[in-house]
Amino acid sequence: MTENVNPTAVLIIIGNEILSGRTCDANLSFIGQRCEALGIDLIEGRIIQDIETTIIDIVNDYRTRVDYVFTTGGIGPTHDDITSASIAKAFGVELERNAEAVEVLERHYPSGKLNEARLKMADVPVGSRLIDNPVSSAPGFQIENVYVLPGVPSIMQAMFDGMTDRLTGGLPILTESVKTDLTEGGIAAELSKVQAVYEDVSIGSYPFFKAGFLGVNLILRSTDNERLREATEKVKDMILGMEGQIFKSK
Amino acid sequence: MTENVNPTAVLIIIGNEILSGRTCDANLSFIGQRCEALGIDLIEGRIIQDIETTIIDIVNDYRTRVDYVFTTGGIGPTHDDITSASIAKAFGVELERNAEAVEVLERHYPSGKLNEARLKMADVPVGSRLIDNPVSSAPGFQIENVYVLPGVPSIMQAMFDGMTDRLTGGLPILTESVKTDLTEGGIAAELSKVQAVYEDVSIGSYPFFKAGFLGVNLILRSTDNERLREATEKVKDMILGMEGQIFKSK
Repeated sequence: MTENVNPTAVLIIIGNEILSGRTCDANLSFIGQRCEALGIDLIEGRIIQDIETTIIDIVNDYRTRVDYVFTTGGIGPTHDDITSASIAKAFGVELERNAEAVEVLERHYPSGKLNEARLKMADVPVGSRLIDNPVSSAPGFQIENVYVLPGVPSIMQAMFDGMTDRLTGGLPILTESVKTDLTEGGIAAELSKVQAVYEDVSIGSYPFFKAGFLGVNLILRSTDNERLREATEKVKDMILGMEGQIFKSK
Repeated sequence: MTENVNPTAVLIIIGNEILSGRTCDANLSFIGQRCEALGIDLIEGRIIQDIETTIIDIVNDYRTRVDYVFTTGGIGPTHDDITSASIAKAFGVELERNAEAVEVLERHYPSGKLNEARLKMADVPVGSRLIDNPVSSAPGFQIENVYVLPGVPSIMQAMFDGMTDRLTGGLPILTESVKTDLTEGGIAAELSKVQAVYEDVSIGSYPFFKAGFLGVNLILRSTDNERLREATEKVKDMILGMEGQIFKSK
């Protein structure tokens, strides 16, 4: 890659259910792909426990070091939803009941169903800007460069896509993939030579083993389309020169 | 939960392909479940880029703070596999070609196929103990409390299960789950009361929205089986008392 000039981001995934292995996270993959398209470098993902001091320390560490901090999880109505209160403490501000959020919840819930637990979802740190939830109404919020989203993937995705106008990206990262039946060990030396010539294209090598079939996926990434195409052609020539097959990637 | 006396662990997932969203990580979920069964608290998962200084800094930070550090990814034969060399630098030791690992690779590869790139997979930090790979032969390694494993899930899993005798756990964390058609906001207040009585049982609440159907999964966790069962009964009574249905969990 050329010297990184794109803005940076991290994703903090808050939730014991991910660490226990019970739920397999799907949010990193989505946000990673969106960041790539937006020209934002997602430099880290971090899965942490539902512990107030942990959330505070980790949010405060990242928000001064990267351009965008996204969090998922812990903004629902139950006792284990402590993200909003923890983020308020991280910023040293009070949690307040947001009038606009209350209004949204009032419109969403049938009469008599908007109880105190649900109203808790209208509590955001002072100084926040709401993030609209077109699926189930309870909003997320943005405070400075920290974007607080829910953990349920379908809802998080709709909310993320609704607020991308708040994110300023750089050059989109373009990718090409080449899939072959050659093995990593067989192509490593030749592949290094291609990588050495195309320093501004990052070439990743990912072996696969599926249904008795093995091979490697080569992923090329760059912000420069011309160089990306050239490097991809070189990789394909290399494979064909070694009598490997090239498969159509998904 | 009662005061935590179990050993702690973190998983460091090394790989740009996870951060780009191209590959969805499956290793955290596996290791999380194994840790739970072993009585080890997986307190964090961290997905980082293939950058030497990043790997060094993060490994060195965690290895002094937790009992076990697991890493996945970056120990193959290609130019982007830099984990072993980075871990050697983290420990301030040389990388050496391990004779036992060379022997394993020699037995695995047909004559003439064990090239220099593949031999690179026999390079481990001085002072390491190998981790056997029953699938594709190239070993992982353990240096002090850091366990270095490959990224391909099927191989990583076989290797992890083959080395669990090196891990000393505490009390296994037992879990129960209760799935209902009631919603989070509807049960939040009552659920808090159960949680308040059973402080030694961690109760997590995870809403689901699938195929037009919504509800919540309640996950109860404790090292004390008796208390876990009692709290689970209270949760079930609570649901039935609110005229909710209880579904058989998968």
